[in-house]
Order: sequence, then C-alpha cells, then structure tokens
Amino acid sequence: MIEVTRRLNDRASLTLYMLDQEISYQVIKEHPTLIICPGGSYLFRAKKESEPVALTFLARGYNVVLLNYTTYFEERVDLKIDVPKVDSNSHYPQQLSELVQTLKILKELSVEYKLDLTRLFLLGFSAGGHIAASYAVHWNDYEYLNKIGIDGRDCLKLRGILLAYPMLTGDLGDMISKAKKDTSIKEQLPYLNNAIYGTEQPTLVQKEELNLIHQINKTIPPTFLWQSLQDEVTPVSDSLKWMVKLTELNIECESHFFGSGKHGMGLANSIAAKNSSDEDIACSKWVELADLWMKRHDYINIVEEA
Amino acid sequence: MIEVTRRLNDRASLTLYMLDQEISYQVIKEHPTLIICPGGSYLFRAKKESEPVALTFLARGYNVVLLNYTTYFEERVDLKIDVPKVDSNSHYPQQLSELVQTLKILKELSVEYKLDLTRLFLLGFSAGGHIAASYAVHWNDYEYLNKIGIDGRDCLKLRGILLAYPMLTGDLGDMISKAKKDTSIKEQLPYLNNAIYGTEQPTLVQKEELNLIHQINKTIPPTFLWQSLQDEVTPVSDSLKWMVKLTELNIECESHFFGSGKHGMGLANSIAAKNSSDEDIACSKWVELADLWMKRHDYINIVEEA
Amino acid sequence: MIEVTRRLNDRASLTLYMLDQEISYQVIKEHPTLIICPGGSYLFRAKKESEPVALTFLARGYNVVLLNYTTYFEERVDLKIDVPKVDSNSHYPQQLSELVQTLKILKELSVEYKLDLTRLFLLGFSAGGHIAASYAVHWNDYEYLNKIGIDGRDCLKLRGILLAYPMLTGDLGDMISKAKKDTSIKEQLPYLNNAIYGTEQPTLVQKEELNLIHQINKTIPPTFLWQSLQDEVTPVSDSLKWMVKLTELNIECESHFFGSGKHGMGLANSIAAKNSSDEDIACSKWVELADLWMKRHDYINIVEEA
Amino acid sequence: MIEVTRRLNDRASLTLYMLDQEISYQVIKEHPTLIICPGGSYLFRAKKESEPVALTFLARGYNVVLLNYTTYFEERVDLKIDVPKVDSNSHYPQQLSELVQTLKILKELSVEYKLDLTRLFLLGFSAGGHIAASYAVHWNDYEYLNKIGIDGRDCLKLRGILLAYPMLTGDLGDMISKAKKDTSIKEQLPYLNNAIYGTEQPTLVQKEELNLIHQINKTIPPTFLWQSLQDEVTPVSDSLKWMVKLTELNIECESHFFGSGKHGMGLANSIAAKNSSDEDIACSKWVELADLWMKRHDYINIVEEA
Repeated sequence: MIEVTRRLNDRASLTLYMLDQEISYQVIKEHPTLIICPGGSYLFRAKKESEPVALTFLARGYNVVLLNYTTYFEERVDLKIDVPKVDSNSHYPQQLSELVQTLKILKELSVEYKLDLTRLFLLGFSAGGHIAASYAVHWNDYEYLNKIGIDGRDCLKLRGILLAYPMLTGDLGDMISKAKKDTSIKEQLPYLNNAIYGTEQPTLVQKEELNLIHQINKTIPPTFLWQSLQDEVTPVSDSLKWMVKLTELNIECESHFFGSGKHGMGLANSIAAKNSSDEDIACSKWVELADLWMKRHDYINIVEEA
Repeated sequence: MIEVTRRLNDRASLTLYMLDQEISYQVIKEHPTLIICPGGSYLFRAKKESEPVALTFLARGYNVVLLNYTTYFEERVDLKIDVPKVDSNSHYPQQLSELVQTLKILKELSVEYKLDLTRLFLLGFSAGGHIAASYAVHWNDYEYLNKIGIDGRDCLKLRGILLAYPMLTGDLGDMISKAKKDTSIKEQLPYLNNAIYGTEQPTLVQKEELNLIHQINKTIPPTFLWQSLQDEVTPVSDSLKWMVKLTELNIECESHFFGSGKHGMGLANSIAAKNSSDEDIACSKWVELADLWMKRHDYINIVEEA
Repeated sequence: MIEVTRRLNDRASLTLYMLDQEISYQVIKEHPTLIICPGGSYLFRAKKESEPVALTFLARGYNVVLLNYTTYFEERVDLKIDVPKVDSNSHYPQQLSELVQTLKILKELSVEYKLDLTRLFLLGFSAGGHIAASYAVHWNDYEYLNKIGIDGRDCLKLRGILLAYPMLTGDLGDMISKAKKDTSIKEQLPYLNNAIYGTEQPTLVQKEELNLIHQINKTIPPTFLWQSLQDEVTPVSDSLKWMVKLTELNIECESHFFGSGKHGMGLANSIAAKNSSDEDIACSKWVELADLWMKRHDYINIVEEA
Repeated sequence: MIEVTRRLNDRASLTLYMLDQEISYQVIKEHPTLIICPGGSYLFRAKKESEPVALTFLARGYNVVLLNYTTYFEERVDLKIDVPKVDSNSHYPQQLSELVQTLKILKELSVEYKLDLTRLFLLGFSAGGHIAASYAVHWNDYEYLNKIGIDGRDCLKLRGILLAYPMLTGDLGDMISKAKKDTSIKEQLPYLNNAIYGTEQPTLVQKEELNLIHQINKTIPPTFLWQSLQDEVTPVSDSLKWMVKLTELNIECESHFFGSGKHGMGLANSIAAKNSSDEDIACSKWVELADLWMKRHDYINIVEEA
C-alpha cells in the first residue's frame, strides 16, 4: 500500500491509500477508487466515519481517498466546557471546492500511480453527504461552478455516489432542535448556520442554494443511499425525496431505510462503537450491500467500455 | 413439527407448520407465527414463493402458515400452448376473505396448540402482497369489511407485515404491457383484469377500491418492504408511495430497494432458482434483514407487555 | 413438501421430508437427501439435534430423513426425580439395524417419489454419530453385518457422512465420569453401559466391537467432522484419531475443532438454545461449512457420472 | 492510522500499522496487535499473504505488524527464464532472529504509542508459519536462543499464534517433488535446502533442529491452525501432528482442515485472486473464524487480569 498525503490549503488535505496493483507475483490488478467524506455538521470531521470506513473498503479492494476538508471548528472541543475557536471562512462551498481540488490532484497522481480515473466512487456521511450530493448535482454545470469559484474542468465523471444518512439541505438545525433522544447534539445549534452558510441568518436565496433536493437533475450519477428511520439529525423525508426524484428521472437509487439504529453510526458494527448503542446489526449490513453495489457498477462500466 | 391443513372452501386451504415448543428436554419456547401469501397475479400461486420461503422461516424459528388462496386459473397451464380453465368467482375480495378466515381458524387452533396470537406477522409477495396490504389497510374498518362480506371481529392485530415487490393497485396490466426484458409475463395480460377485478373492464370505483395506496391510514401495522428497482411487473413508484405515506404517518416502514434483480425472485438465492438469472446476491439479503426486523418487533412487544 | 412416516418396529420410526421437485412452474430439480441421527447417549433422542437440524437442511435444499431410533429409556424422565422405564433390548447393534432398515425403505419409496439414491448423506450427533460411523465402517462388510443380523444388500453407498462431536467408542462413561463443568450429565452414568452394550459389564470383545476407531478401513465414505475442544462427553482424541487415520488412508476428512463451545450444542445458534450458554458463534459456522461440503460432494459425483 | 517502518538490517524491515486509539471524540480504545509473517518457502515473501491480509485484520480492529524478513532470493524472478541472485546468509534462524528483533522494537515503540504488549498475536503462512511456530516452541528457552544468537529477554508472551498451512519441518522439498497439480512450484526445488538450512545437504542434526514437531512443549501458546487437505506443499500430516500433540499437552489448538482448496490461498477470497482457482468459499471462512478466535483470547485475558 502506498500512502500519499497532499495539502489542499492550510486547513485541508487529502490522504490517498493505494493498494498494491501487483496482487501476486507478476499478476496486475487495477483497483477502483473510493473517495470518503466523513460527516460532522461542517463543524468537525467524525472519527468513526474516517479511518474505520477507509480501512473497511481498502480491505475490500478499493483504493481510498480520505478527504480532510475544512471545518468551522479549528479544533474539536467539548462544547459542554469549552468555547471552540472558529474559522469564519469555513462554509459552503469551501468543502465542495476542496473535493474538486482533490479530483484535480487525483488526475495529476493518476499518471505516476496508474490510477484508473474512470472507476471512481464517492461516499459521504451526514454533512459529508452534503458535499457528495452537491458534487452530484453540480459537477457538470460549469456555469454555476464558475460562479462559486470552481473550475468545472477539474470535475470527473463518477460511477456512483454513496450517501449515508446524508444532509441534503442546509436546514440541519430544524431537525436537531426537535431531537428527543440524541440531545447532546443540540450543543451544536449555536454554530450550525455559521458552519453551513457562513452567517447566522441565511437568506432564502442561500437556503435555496444549499437545498440539493431542489437541484436534482439528470446528470446525477447512480446513488446508493442508506439511513435509519430513527435518525433525529438529518430528515428521512429528504432522503426519500432524493430517492423518489431520482427514480422519476430513471437514475438508479438503491436505498436502504432501516427501522432500527440512529444517526451517525458509521459502520454500525463494534469496530468504532463506544458501546452497544452505537451498534446495529441490521444497519451494519450496509457495508456489504454498498460493496456489492459498487462492484456491480464497476463491472457494468468496464464491460460496456470493452 | 406439527402440520395442520384446513380447507377454507373447495378451492382454498391453509397449512400450518408448528415448531415443537419443547426445544430441549423440559425447556419450552413459544414461537412467533408468520403467514405467507405467495404471488402469482391472482392467476395462480408461485411455487418459489411458497415452500422454499416457508422452510426458510421455519428454520429461523417461526411457525408458518401457508395460505393457499383461490386463484383465477383452476390449474396452472402453459399459456403458450394451453387455454386455462378459469374460476370467474375468483377475484378481490375473495382472497382477503380467505386470509381473514385463516385468522379465525388460527384463533380456534391457538387453544389446542398454544399459539400466541399476539405474535403474528404476514408476508406477501407480488399479488400476495396485495392481500397482505389489503388486510393492513382494512383490518380495523369493520364497516368496510362488513360491506364486502367479512366479519371484522375475526381480524387480529399483527406485529408487522412484510411486502415483497407488492402489487399495491389493481393496475398490474399497465406495467406488464410495457415490460421489456420479462416478456413471457405478457401472456398473462388477457386474464389479469378478470383475475383481479372479476371483470375485463373495471370501473373507476373498482379501480379505486383496489388501489391500496389511496387507502393508507393510521391503523396499518409496521411494514418491511423490499423490491428490485428493475422490477417490470409491479411499479417501484407504488412501493415508494407506500413508504413515503407511512413515514408521514409515523408508521415504521423499513424499506430496501435494490438496484439489481427483477420481479418475482422469491428468496433470490440458489434454492429455487432455475438458473443464475433467478439469483441476486444483493436481493437475497432481504431474508436476513426481514428476520432481524421481525425479531425486533417480536421482542419489542414482549418487553412492552411485561 | 411431502412428509412420510414409516414405522420400523414398535419403538422406532423414520420421517422423510421431501422437498417439492417442481421448484418453479415446469422446472424440475432433484434434491440430495440427508439422513439425520440425533444424539442422546443411546438413552433418548435429543430434541435440539432433531427438528431444528432437519428444518435447517430442508431450507438449504436437502430432503431430510429423521431417524427416530430405539433408545434405552422408553420415555425421557428427569433423572433427578424419576426412575426411567428401560428397554433392555435397546443397545448396539439395534440402532445400526434400524438405520439399514431405513435405507431399505428409502429404496422402496424412491420409485414412487423419484428419490435419487445415489445422492445420500448421513449426519450423526454424539451417539447418533456412533450409528453413522458404525454404518461407515461396516456398510460393505456383508459377513459382519450378517453375523449381527443385518442384510448387507440393504446398504447403500453414501456420498459422505457428517459427524458432530461423535461417540466413536462405547466408553462414554469414562469421559463423563471426569466431566468438570457439565456435571448434570453424570446422572446418565448408571444406565450407560446397558444402553450401549446391553450389559453393565461389557467384555473386552464387546468393547472392541463398539470401538469404531479400531475398525477404520478403506470403505469409509468421505467425512465431515466437527467438535468443540471443550467437549467433556465424547473425547476429542477419538475424533482426532478418526481424522488422522482417514487421512492416512487418503479418505477426505474435513475437520473443524473449535476452541470454544461444549458438547451437544446442535446448531449452536439461538434457535434451540435455552440460554446463551447453548450458543457459540464460532461453532455455529459448522452448518454453512457442512452445507458447502455436501454441495461439493453432491456436485463432484454428478459431474463424474455425466 | 499511523504507519511506522523500521529497518532490522540491510535486507529486513518491519512495518507497523497502528489504528487510531481515539475511535470517537474523547473515546479511547486500545487495540490488540497482530504480527504477520507471509510465506514463500524462505525464498521470497508472497504478496497475497502480505498487504491483503494486513488490511483485512486492520479493518477488523487489530494493529498490524508486517514482518518483511530476509529471504534467499535477493529479488524475486521468474525461475523459468531467470537465475535469481541469492543471499547465502539467508536461512534459519535468521528469520526467527528478525522476529525477535521485531518484538524488541515493539517494546521500544510501545512507550511512545501506548501499544499493549500483553495483547499480541502472531500469524504465519507456510514458511512464515515456520517462523511463527519456531518462536512458539523456543520463546521461553533462553539457553537455545542464546546458542543461536538470540537474546531471550527480547521475547514476549503471546496470546496466541495462527498457522495457515504452515511449514513445520525443513523438509519442504520432499512434498514439493511429489506435487501433481501444482507443478510450477517444482522450480523452487534446486534452491530450497540452501534457503532453509543454508546448505544443499543438511545433516540429520540440522534436519532435527528445524523439525518443530519434535520440539513441541508446554510453553507453546494457544494455536489456531488451518489448511486445505489438498495441499501439495506442506504436509497435512505435520499439521495433524501439531494438533494432536498440543491437544495431548492440553494446549488449545483450534483447527480447520478443509476438504477443498490448495496450498497458498492467503485470504482465499477474490481480493488477491488471479482467477477463480485461487478462491475457495469454504477456506475463505478462516478469516472470520480466526477473528472470533483472537477476540475470545484477547477477551479472556483482559477479564482475567481485571
């Protein structure tokens, strides 16, 4: 395995883990590549959605890119006792921009490392799902991208995106303020709008811009989506709208809505669980389902090209 | 295991398979019970959705009731070469009525066999899903049931229903006539409306009555639903409407929409597959997901009652 | 599924569960057949090694024969409080004789039910493993069989035998008297020799006759064997000897010796477990391993014949 | 994840992959550590037993140390067309010495990285299994270690060793020369004795020293062992002797002998398979069985210490 880390700016970086292509003596196998955007409400990056997920898919035969995007908190602190240092420049579309920069860097690295850029997948959890879904709706709209300071030519066509309990609008606070079980998450409320919109009072135009459901279009790649119906942070109804609209547009959207579980479970198994409440056997099946889904899309396209 | 078969009328019957309650010497364990309605467009009953499914859930610790409901064809024939004998009395709500009779018989048997009637699940495939979903929307509406000749007092509260690529309206022909891959199913078209509505030209009122999506209400039990997005027989959009409306009503609807597969896969594994096109690894995961889902709902209620 | 029960004598019977061969309309598939001998020290037949095991393999595509062989106790009683009625005629080789009668009946039934007698497997647990292993060493030795009153022509060649923590000698009491954890089993001690040998004081000749390890020979079919290393009832060392000698004779003996678990776990999962001490995740993998093993042996032979 | 590489000498090195101990914000979890010795007949190090295995266990929650020990070939070449450069100093006990050096370095690193040295496992494939088993028999015998130039005080007590189709004597050539299916491996024959013993004609004393079965003793840690019965490279009979002798000594030896497969399958799944002949569903179950086995031994000891 080769590990390459590249800085994107003074706060963001990417780490690319590449599997050895020589899987056996003189036997070469190119691997698909999965870019991972952990969640964290655009405030921080959740650990359980980073390393354990990266290792799980490396072990299943994917090169992995972990995107350490810019977040509002300069460092994570315990909000019960500390006031976080914040970075007022960290808000949409900063993270989308960093994702596109990541693709640009992958293009550069692809020559040296023989990365197959036609076999890319993108997985986002929660707020990382907002980055992934933003890319999915905008990647082919050079005009919009140009307007927000992104060069559309750096974008790459993906084989698919994977959304785990994604944030699909900027209205994260609306849900969180109503949470009944997962109350510690309410500590995030005073910071959310700044972290997402860059202002405490977003305008209707801003809200509309970050509402990705309203921007669903024909260029979205096939989607794999999963969520717990007991999620108290990102609305299941938003995921359902995503699913329904893609289906209407004839874009495949494999979807798994589990009756058990909660928001933010990551792998949902024992690997990164504090205690058993962080585990759910049913939800944990998403990993194998996602793997099967990617392998199918990886294969479909290879065959089609041949 | 005890096997009890009861006739419901000259064409329909039920077979109840009961697990031994003494699982080990002097150790008693009561089992939940799963009623299975196979599919078959109300024309016949699909074999692959009958015995193999019954055995799968028996092996996982459920008593199983296989409902051999009345169908339009008196005997299944090869429609390419034969004209089937038909039973013009076989159409909705005959099958719903037979399901309710089944519950009545279960009540009678429960005394002798110590069946726990508070731990019932109902699983329907395709047209069998229409029976199950009909029950789900109507079981508590004695007025409607009375109108169609069913005694509502025979109904029982279920812990949950499971819908596998269900038929949720009577408009099966609309989809089938557009099928591109699964063309042999078009042979069913001339018989469908008679089998479903009892007439070749159903009125709008009849169509409305069989459209279960329009009758979704608060009394529907928690639902587990799965379907392949490549289904060419029952519309995915109908399942999505079911899912969306139940979620709006705060009724749990665990849902799995697989990108791969097709209509009518049953277990989707090798057990009842003619060839590999009848298998799909992703879809085949529904069995374990359904088992986990039922065990959770079975357990929740036991604990609540205690 | 068709269930056929046949009496072998006034105390023993067999129940044959046959899967429907028409797995889908006009699609015929013949199934292999698995004969199951539950354990129980030749005193009784263990429930957890009967129905749950039968259902598990039915669900996996095997016809199943459950052999309800004669046991020493006429009825199982709680040995702490009751004295059992015993059947002094019940001892080796009565059970082996009943197994061979079972094969004879299968031959008769095979005509009517199109059972493929070339695709037979035999699975025995504990004392049922002694029946299975006795058959394995003797099935082709007509002289010995004749001596003990069995007509060798009734025997059939098996594709394989499966031994779950088998009793391979008659010296069950030696182990049980030393058991440290599983002490309730010591209640069986006063009855064991009568149940096994038909006498409280077996002669050396009798002991030798029932010691199957000393009778290992080239005619034994391929074996699948599993056991917990923490077994306090049947000696692991005996299973190891079976494994080593078969390997020396070039007979395949797939073997799984688990570090966890204990004697008599049956499926080792939650289905027939009184409590969690009856479950072991590692041991429970034997079912899938056994299924893979039989499917391979079933397939090998079909291909060879073609 | 932190990756630390340390040179052991000009030809050997170790790479330590350490999981983040902060699995979730402010939630610390220490991980057990698994040292991996790939196989390769002491001639080279097999790729499929290196990175894919390391990633598989990292993803399952183990820190991993990959031991890149010295081999006889300075670089792997295609023996059909090239003559390899050899290192005549590379032979037993060089690799054992490098393993002990690895432990010494782990001790040093444990302070900085908070590695729990009481939770160590060692996994060796084929010739790597000879390294692991050598350590297992000698780690506590300071006199012998001293004689071969190793400081016994650098050794550490292990929770368990895992042997995958291990080489347990120096007589690898005897088997290989008889191989019927896997004939390409015969190319290794001219080099084997030099690679293993450091001489083409080992003396009886040398042969005895490398025969680990003759050196089994009470200090061997619990063992997990697996092998295909169709192995044509390392004798199944040797593994069986290991299993039998450990059992006699009351040392746990969980063992899985699969009827299918062949030598050198590594994970035995599709990840590092050239083609389907490198895969075997049954054999591939060893990974989960090994994981369960290590988790049990990891847990047992933590509980005992508490």
